[in-house]
Amino acid sequence: MKAYLAGPDVFLPNALQNAAAKIAICAKYGITGRAPLNEEIEQLAALPEDEAWRVIYLKDIEMMQECDIIIANLTPFRGASADSGTLIELGWFLGQNKPVFGYSNSAEPFAARSHRHVAAIADPIPGLAVEGFGLADNLMIAGAVTYGGGLPLTLPADGITRAFDALDIFETCAATAAEKLQIKPPGF
Amino acid sequence: MKAYLAGPDVFLPNALQNAAAKIAICAKYGITGRAPLNEEIEQLAALPEDEAWRVIYLKDIEMMQECDIIIANLTPFRGASADSGTLIELGWFLGQNKPVFGYSNSAEPFAARSHRHVAAIADPIPGLAVEGFGLADNLMIAGAVTYGGGLPLTLPADGITRAFDALDIFETCAATAAEKLQIKPPGF
Repeated sequence: MKAYLAGPDVFLPNALQNAAAKIAICAKYGITGRAPLNEEIEQLAALPEDEAWRVIYLKDIEMMQECDIIIANLTPFRGASADSGTLIELGWFLGQNKPVFGYSNSAEPFAARSHRHVAAIADPIPGLAVEGFGLADNLMIAGAVTYGGGLPLTLPADGITRAFDALDIFETCAATAAEKLQIKPPGF
Repeated sequence: MKAYLAGPDVFLPNALQNAAAKIAICAKYGITGRAPLNEEIEQLAALPEDEAWRVIYLKDIEMMQECDIIIANLTPFRGASADSGTLIELGWFLGQNKPVFGYSNSAEPFAARSHRHVAAIADPIPGLAVEGFGLADNLMIAGAVTYGGGLPLTLPADGITRAFDALDIFETCAATAAEKLQIKPPGF
């Protein structure tokens, strides 16, 4: 069972180490993690900008096609919601009817972040509605995860927001995904 | 040809009028526009929060299944990127191999917005990379639209950012989508 490890983790200064740690956690639960790193980054740097992004996009789509499930890091990133590229990928897996799992290191409800964003950086139009529902992010994200994988978004159970690059909530998400999919851990 | 009219337009104070205007524009080009409004909002208000969002999610997914293409409003919304729910929907259409079209009323590159966001609301981890490539948004969005619909993201050709609810860029997007799909306008 191959899992596409989506998330803004790719932007971390230690993206390689982070990916290796996630892959090791997946292995504990019988899941083969695949991280969309840009290992060929030196080769990419030599390409014109308009070619480089296409190479990355097509490489990521190919890896998504090779994977059976997605485990997405939906921790808020540069805005009220999760990372935009990750959301395209989450939607793609849902559209392909491949199981969708996700987690967030934030314990704060989406509405609170949205209101804070509106206060800090005024909305372009007064009176734009803020979505409620007590969810962790936009309802399409909650729905994709809940209905696409059969489990709710994995959040800090103790209500304490984790550091952006903490991996304990990811581990809970991987463990519950493996249980849901009845994947046997190594040695069983 | 039915088009799912995705976007944060649903949060506009005049969402109903906005949807009607978009549907009228689509009709000019032989496209049947469908907008994911929450017309049954009074009934929804009577539901507990945890039921209301599920009703909306399942209704939107059903409308997406009934549509042949998506025309997504990818104007930045409460963050550096497009609206999160819209991105799930865009990814879903890509995963379903249904043609994907999108536009943004912003003429500003993604990297400029990201840098401004990092300056205004510090990133949670120092050294998180900012994606470049001279694109209008995250490369997965650019790729979904470019490769999923065969046209680049429709942007203000004059380089002037439009109001959040302006519809001229949407009209250009609908017109070029109709041309790409060889849809005959009414009367032909």
